[in-house]
Amino acid sequence: MNKTWESRLAWLKALKTPVPAELNNPLEVADFEAKTYLNFEKTGRSVCFKTYPAMKESYAIETAGDGYIISGGQPGVLYGVYALMRALEAGEKLPSGVQKPYYPLRMIDCWDNMDGSVERGYAGRSIWFEENRFDYDPARIRQLGRMLASVGINVLCINNVNVHQPAQHLLDNLLPQVEQIAALLRPFGVRLMLSIDFSLPLQNGVETADPEDPAVADWWKKRAREVWGAIPDLAGFLVKADSEHRPGPNAYGRTHAQGANMLARAIAPFGGVLVWRAFVYNCMQDWRDTNTDRPRAAYDLYQPLDGAFDENVILQVKYGPYDFQVREPVSPLLLGMEKTRLAVEFQLAQEYTGHQIDLFAMPPLWRDIFDQMGKERVRAIAAVSNLGRDGNWTGHPFAALNLFAYGIFAWKPDASPQQVIRAWVRNTYNLSEQDEEQLIDLLLASRGVYEKYTAPLGLCWMVRPEGHYGPSPYGYEFQAWGTYNRADRNAVGVDRTERGTGYVAQYPPKWKKLYENPHTCPDELLLFFHRLPYDFVMKDGRTLIQRIYDDHFEGVVAAETMAETLKALPLPEEDRREALERMDLQVQNAREWRDVINTFFRRFSGVDDVHGRKIYD
Amino acid sequence: MNKTWESRLAWLKALKTPVPAELNNPLEVADFEAKTYLNFEKTGRSVCFKTYPAMKESYAIETAGDGYIISGGQPGVLYGVYALMRALEAGEKLPSGVQKPYYPLRMIDCWDNMDGSVERGYAGRSIWFEENRFDYDPARIRQLGRMLASVGINVLCINNVNVHQPAQHLLDNLLPQVEQIAALLRPFGVRLMLSIDFSLPLQNGVETADPEDPAVADWWKKRAREVWGAIPDLAGFLVKADSEHRPGPNAYGRTHAQGANMLARAIAPFGGVLVWRAFVYNCMQDWRDTNTDRPRAAYDLYQPLDGAFDENVILQVKYGPYDFQVREPVSPLLLGMEKTRLAVEFQLAQEYTGHQIDLFAMPPLWRDIFDQMGKERVRAIAAVSNLGRDGNWTGHPFAALNLFAYGIFAWKPDASPQQVIRAWVRNTYNLSEQDEEQLIDLLLASRGVYEKYTAPLGLCWMVRPEGHYGPSPYGYEFQAWGTYNRADRNAVGVDRTERGTGYVAQYPPKWKKLYENPHTCPDELLLFFHRLPYDFVMKDGRTLIQRIYDDHFEGVVAAETMAETLKALPLPEEDRREALERMDLQVQNAREWRDVINTFFRRFSGVDDVHGRKIYD
Repeated sequence: MNKTWESRLAWLKALKTPVPAELNNPLEVADFEAKTYLNFEKTGRSVCFKTYPAMKESYAIETAGDGYIISGGQPGVLYGVYALMRALEAGEKLPSGVQKPYYPLRMIDCWDNMDGSVERGYAGRSIWFEENRFDYDPARIRQLGRMLASVGINVLCINNVNVHQPAQHLLDNLLPQVEQIAALLRPFGVRLMLSIDFSLPLQNGVETADPEDPAVADWWKKRAREVWGAIPDLAGFLVKADSEHRPGPNAYGRTHAQGANMLARAIAPFGGVLVWRAFVYNCMQDWRDTNTDRPRAAYDLYQPLDGAFDENVILQVKYGPYDFQVREPVSPLLLGMEKTRLAVEFQLAQEYTGHQIDLFAMPPLWRDIFDQMGKERVRAIAAVSNLGRDGNWTGHPFAALNLFAYGIFAWKPDASPQQVIRAWVRNTYNLSEQDEEQLIDLLLASRGVYEKYTAPLGLCWMVRPEGHYGPSPYGYEFQAWGTYNRADRNAVGVDRTERGTGYVAQYPPKWKKLYENPHTCPDELLLFFHRLPYDFVMKDGRTLIQRIYDDHFEGVVAAETMAETLKALPLPEEDRREALERMDLQVQNAREWRDVINTFFRRFSGVDDVHGRKIYD
Repeated sequence: MNKTWESRLAWLKALKTPVPAELNNPLEVADFEAKTYLNFEKTGRSVCFKTYPAMKESYAIETAGDGYIISGGQPGVLYGVYALMRALEAGEKLPSGVQKPYYPLRMIDCWDNMDGSVERGYAGRSIWFEENRFDYDPARIRQLGRMLASVGINVLCINNVNVHQPAQHLLDNLLPQVEQIAALLRPFGVRLMLSIDFSLPLQNGVETADPEDPAVADWWKKRAREVWGAIPDLAGFLVKADSEHRPGPNAYGRTHAQGANMLARAIAPFGGVLVWRAFVYNCMQDWRDTNTDRPRAAYDLYQPLDGAFDENVILQVKYGPYDFQVREPVSPLLLGMEKTRLAVEFQLAQEYTGHQIDLFAMPPLWRDIFDQMGKERVRAIAAVSNLGRDGNWTGHPFAALNLFAYGIFAWKPDASPQQVIRAWVRNTYNLSEQDEEQLIDLLLASRGVYEKYTAPLGLCWMVRPEGHYGPSPYGYEFQAWGTYNRADRNAVGVDRTERGTGYVAQYPPKWKKLYENPHTCPDELLLFFHRLPYDFVMKDGRTLIQRIYDDHFEGVVAAETMAETLKALPLPEEDRREALERMDLQVQNAREWRDVINTFFRRFSGVDDVHGRKIYD
């Protein structure tokens, strides 16, 4: 271990005393947290616990005189304590009745590599690994357990879905070290998951990884027995197969259902779930090919397999059909798999959404997705981690909001973004009501601001291909990723209606009808679904090109205004410094985006801004 | 050392016997080579040597009966032996009279890092380093010495001009290991040079690297004494300062003359030369800024310093004002420094010229540069190495031609590309006269073919920013590198006349007059100097846009024709396989370039091809 990392919590900062290493289960932690917290508050109030094993993750909070009675299972009582604290810190009324998480599986996926790098990580090096071995501070992992439990997250996958050597060995000679992490997190109700490489048997003396070959199935069964022997409460395996050059069943002419079911059967006896990522598309597309349309790929591949997956398979689907863009319509696959257990996948790591430099509070995005999808469509929820070795965990101190809010949404997908943001603010800072409202408004608006100055109206993929930060409007245009805007001197966008790629037909009639007509399609998705001339007249009477210019000028003004607001906020010194440093970069980034995008479209269209604002040649 | 590398020579393949490790000086090597070669040929012919120390690198060859008398200094006699072999292999007549290299300093610069990577290397890992230490096969280094001496190259810089840790220590604790390499190459007349970090004193306890601070000058003097104490024939130091984030004198408000002279004075007592690279420009340019023009940068910075450099400073100037592009006008700095010793810098590594996949024989490019510049303008010559750990040294077996030809041009800058290419072909392969002519024609034409299918008419920088291979016409457009084409719906290019950036005024009147008028400017440089509308009428009556289309269609046909020619050539099996594999990739690359460039310009211009050939939307 290189150093002892800082161990401040990203919220619930009133909890100054670390959870002792000796505590063995959620009830003991609950008792410790309750006593420490209330004692710290010097209220003299008490908490009693009534445990009902059958309640499991559920809990109820009652007041009893000056104190509280929390009833629940394990880890329910612990969730109850944290819910009590969150409510007290936020000045909210206590939740009434039995509280039960809407989704039983609430996962965080770390994309950490054993060399210590984090794929799409913007908060420092891996919290788990360095130099191809485990390297962590147990005290800090307990702090992480506390944060996860405090918002009810119950599964954590510690290694990247792209399984690079030596992470293959997490399933064999590194297993005892995985168990040590499992033991650290178990008292917080957090179970581990592991990303696995589909071709693992091939690397271990089996001649094939064909899922229909009995030798392969046997190998996995034996392996599962050993893994669950070491970690009986392991949640399951996470698999990225046949995606972006990862191995998978297609190599053997097998379907993804065959691939997933073989693995699922190996782990079913131990209660394991097999999470199979549906992020599969042709990443070697020829840009000349206008028939292939990447957003269609997952539905085309998986929808015919609906009903073919075993009970303990979960198909994990990104919220949009592309890849965690700022604005996408909900993935049609999430609407078209009635007979399959689905998870929706979010990304807390701000890969395309500002690298934890630019502000991007995600609850409004999730609200949109749940509203389009219907929360009942999925049975589980997953999110890519935004965590790293930085002292504040998430690089930008406000990025912690996304982790906090994710946990809340996983329990209550009907949550209001504003209320969740308020809860995080109150659990994190001590601000006057007026300052608090300013910060909440700033966070609530942040996605819209970022959206305004980046790719216009759902066009996507105007970000720099190297790194995914900053503008490069043609950077993806002639590449193999299936990510084209096809801008020319007359028009921009891809026609995804039935006159075009037909993508829109993957939606149920209600959505299809809305999206396929550019006059009813929501503005913010207009260039996702349509190819339009620059003089297309929008619902509000502006031309498309003028709307693009307006958004980009307005986006910068909004970013500058956010910077002013932020400067005036009396945040704690360290958070203030970190946030202001990043805000300077954000304003620069916004100006760069504005000028590049406006110039790009003016060079093509030849149209000037009607208000005469500066567009560079 | 990971393995014993193959040690075939890239030319002079008749030399099957390695040069023994015991030989101590060029005369001994000359004797060995002459005897072995003539014996192998079973001609019974003899070679006598007459050594005249004052002749140094010069030599003369006379016939004497059935044998030869070679007179010269050291390493002159060795050069004489190889010249004899080359002439015999090529069936050329022997050079008559005393042969003397035109440039006394004929350098190869390896951009090798101690981690084993090679910056812009396309022939495998470093031949010198791996895992941050020396790692080489002495027998292979002797083969390299043989190849360098066989074409009269006399200086080799082993480490990257971007000096990354731990290469700083080549000057101190790694010095004994540098000396071992110097000893290996000394019998071949090759002297080492080292790239140094201008800020080295700072890393060694001196409080500054200010060249005017006596402590800094003293530190360098002491260091030089130690370095030359270990390697008395070290050629000198190579410095990249104030360039692309490297440290330099500007940080202390000092000129580059002050920086270079301080170092030059430290090494002058030992006969060392200080090679100072003039590759300095603003690599943080704002693309909105149309006044700053990167090609102007070196002249603007250095021309006012003409005459201010010490005698043993050599200012090393890239052949064009940008950076080793396929087609650039000669750098005006090479024409404007009457009172400064200059070196012209070429790049054998095919960074922008096809990655040693696509064919690009460089002699025609050098011929152009010498013709524009006048050979007498410079006093030395340097080239970035194209060498690596690959069995054939250069990745593509034909890329070895560029190393061979570079040595010949360094001796005879008036050389004819065709003759030099013929000499390499005959020293490398045994082909029938007809096949030989086909191969020569193919190589001679290769630059023109590559030029046709890549960025049009001197426009430069349409290559992918990541890696510098393949098309990305707007990839550099909004970046900080000062590399813009400013294409829009009406026109393309940067106006570098006096109405524009004024770059053309850096040239002497003859060239200025030629370049500043688009009707006299050579077609192949038209878009380097001018911004022109797509309907600009070229000298041959075609429009600019049609010329762009024509070139790109023709470039692919030419590449396909080259592929056919190559397939029919009876090359040795290994070379044939390597060349054909790469040719397949080249044809793909050519098609990709054609379609991307044509589509890019058609999207902007809206103009169709007059011949109705396929341009994708």
